[in-house]
Amino acid sequence: MRIDAALLERRLDDLYAIGAEPGGGTYRPLYGDAWATACDLVGRWMKDAGLAVRRDAVGNIWGRIEGSGKAVVTGSHIDTVRRGGRLDGALGITAGLTALQALIEARGKPKRPIELLVICEEEGSRFATNFWGSRAIIGAIKPGEVDAVTDPEGVTLARAMRERGLDPENISSAARDDLGAFVELHIEQGRILETERVPIAVVTTIAGAVHLEMIVTGRPDHAGTTPMDLRRDALTGAAAMIQAVESIAAALGRPAVATVGKLRVEPDQINVVPGRVTFTVDLRHEGLSGRRALEERVRSLCGTIASERGLGIEVRMLHERPPVPMDSGVRKVLEQAATEAGITPAALVSGAGHDAQVLAARCSVGMLFVPSIGGRSHCPEEATDPAHLALGTRVLARGLELLAY
Amino acid sequence: MRIDAALLERRLDDLYAIGAEPGGGTYRPLYGDAWATACDLVGRWMKDAGLAVRRDAVGNIWGRIEGSGKAVVTGSHIDTVRRGGRLDGALGITAGLTALQALIEARGKPKRPIELLVICEEEGSRFATNFWGSRAIIGAIKPGEVDAVTDPEGVTLARAMRERGLDPENISSAARDDLGAFVELHIEQGRILETERVPIAVVTTIAGAVHLEMIVTGRPDHAGTTPMDLRRDALTGAAAMIQAVESIAAALGRPAVATVGKLRVEPDQINVVPGRVTFTVDLRHEGLSGRRALEERVRSLCGTIASERGLGIEVRMLHERPPVPMDSGVRKVLEQAATEAGITPAALVSGAGHDAQVLAARCSVGMLFVPSIGGRSHCPEEATDPAHLALGTRVLARGLELLAY
Repeated sequence: MRIDAALLERRLDDLYAIGAEPGGGTYRPLYGDAWATACDLVGRWMKDAGLAVRRDAVGNIWGRIEGSGKAVVTGSHIDTVRRGGRLDGALGITAGLTALQALIEARGKPKRPIELLVICEEEGSRFATNFWGSRAIIGAIKPGEVDAVTDPEGVTLARAMRERGLDPENISSAARDDLGAFVELHIEQGRILETERVPIAVVTTIAGAVHLEMIVTGRPDHAGTTPMDLRRDALTGAAAMIQAVESIAAALGRPAVATVGKLRVEPDQINVVPGRVTFTVDLRHEGLSGRRALEERVRSLCGTIASERGLGIEVRMLHERPPVPMDSGVRKVLEQAATEAGITPAALVSGAGHDAQVLAARCSVGMLFVPSIGGRSHCPEEATDPAHLALGTRVLARGLELLAY
Repeated sequence: MRIDAALLERRLDDLYAIGAEPGGGTYRPLYGDAWATACDLVGRWMKDAGLAVRRDAVGNIWGRIEGSGKAVVTGSHIDTVRRGGRLDGALGITAGLTALQALIEARGKPKRPIELLVICEEEGSRFATNFWGSRAIIGAIKPGEVDAVTDPEGVTLARAMRERGLDPENISSAARDDLGAFVELHIEQGRILETERVPIAVVTTIAGAVHLEMIVTGRPDHAGTTPMDLRRDALTGAAAMIQAVESIAAALGRPAVATVGKLRVEPDQINVVPGRVTFTVDLRHEGLSGRRALEERVRSLCGTIASERGLGIEVRMLHERPPVPMDSGVRKVLEQAATEAGITPAALVSGAGHDAQVLAARCSVGMLFVPSIGGRSHCPEEATDPAHLALGTRVLARGLELLAY
């Protein structure tokens, strides 16, 4: 199979130029102008490659090569975050198309149908929702969601759809029950592969995540007149908890991660002992039991710290997402494809969420990761060695061949 | 001497009612309507008590009983913070007046002149300055300050003065070089006296304070895709520093205090490892050498933590105020006055700032503290047992007697 790496790079450049922002990076929010322009461009590429192209009710684009039985699908999302990079989403689309073209050229018509899928939205960076495209495909859009969910300007999903010629009444027609497998090539968005000098990974699981909000209450006091031994300082207590959260995840080792990302102090005055601190904890681990054990330790140790310091603590569950294991058959296929390319792939847990975790409800899913330089992602610096992009595309193509021919 | 404790409580109530806020507490910002009403009321009380009353160029009110030589002065500030309490400032004024009335009644005309001083501003809660009144008295208002300093609405001090009939050109006339001593009764604003069950303290020193700003820089990373061992998390580093700051002050013991009161995380997103944290450190100790040692340990340990974690750290000096010892002669007089009232007074370092630290540049200063219930201050809950207020007033009166008769 001949992978056209130069064409892949050109297509990535062309897509990156659509929605380019003045300060660098690109922004293609769902149903916006840049989004529509990008959809048109990719649709033309697909037609030119000989695919039968159609747009579904929510704006996902499907390009099909006929075959019999359930479809083998590859692709990714076309929307981006603000100041997004050149590869997140765009790589899965352009590499998928490049892989399909190589396959058609080398092997002709497949046994099973193959489809390239351009998912309309994954990032949640315009509307207060995400996985909009993949949820439509599995029939999981909630009744009334199109009218209830808005962007920051108050535009509903329904209105934004109509402005793009899509009928919100018709969403259920986007659901598919004839999908066999979904395989996506994505950048790692972290630096494990770079650190370990491995050019490709087969994802084992998309990690579950829990978002907790911790509210620590002490007593606000005058910073000058209250001796250390008479204080109930919410921030020094929170600091001990933040250290504990870090230690617990570090002690469990990879892939357990725990992050305190947001923190607010009240009253937040230079000369007042903090009376209240609110912070978030993002916890992720491979399996559900591991994640629950992580959460249990965090809750328990924070509770102990609070009671030792005479502080109150309230823990709120903001969000819980179970881990989604990748299909073992698809993983084996992708491992074989990598091995045939001369690489022993890493087995990685994806800490970030992806459409595959949604599509897993309807078909067998698998993912390939290529390294991110410096681990950078969701920023203009997002980049991957072109040789790694070509390798990833080659392994993807061989994986699709093993699944569909 | 007969201390009219009931009159003292009534006057505190009357003052507290001026500037009362809907949610509780009072607000009398410098040169505002409530401030002017309160000044008028106190001016009438002073006249009724037989004092010779005048207003100086910045709006300080002086009520004098003639005598010869340098004046013995007592009093406090009439402005308040937002949602301020009933006693901060108001106690020094009302107790001073009550003490002077008791003295005149019992002893008649003093040898040395005695003055009651109502200081126009101390709290800095309207204009971006403080100690405005006491700085005018020692001739320390900076050239151009009246035009440069504004309130949040952009009103300059000069304009606010003119609106109250005060001439900003005339500020230098407020300076006094004929003051002998200044003695102020104030609430503790902390809970040491309450905890130790001592009803009165003679202040030894107004503690020096240093305000530092620490800027800790790490690397923002995806919370899901970056293993714990590959992170440079600015917030976990800052948390270790906050713990160190607390431990250093606790190990030094009273009166050393160290407070992290303000903290800001960037980017402050639930799923992003913090790349940058900025926090303040308020350090106070009794002597200059003690305070410098405290600061040195904080800087050194924070630097070590940063370098151990691969983080950057920048330390900025926001503000430095040297400690001001109270005059030993005035302290002895106040100790004697307390002892005569049957109390062995505590010797306390004032962690909070007071006008006495400014006036110390021109005369011998001393301060008395009475307990704050629950240590509460700068809030509607600010309160002191009436018996402690009466005792404080009695000790103040006896102190003034020893100084002026």
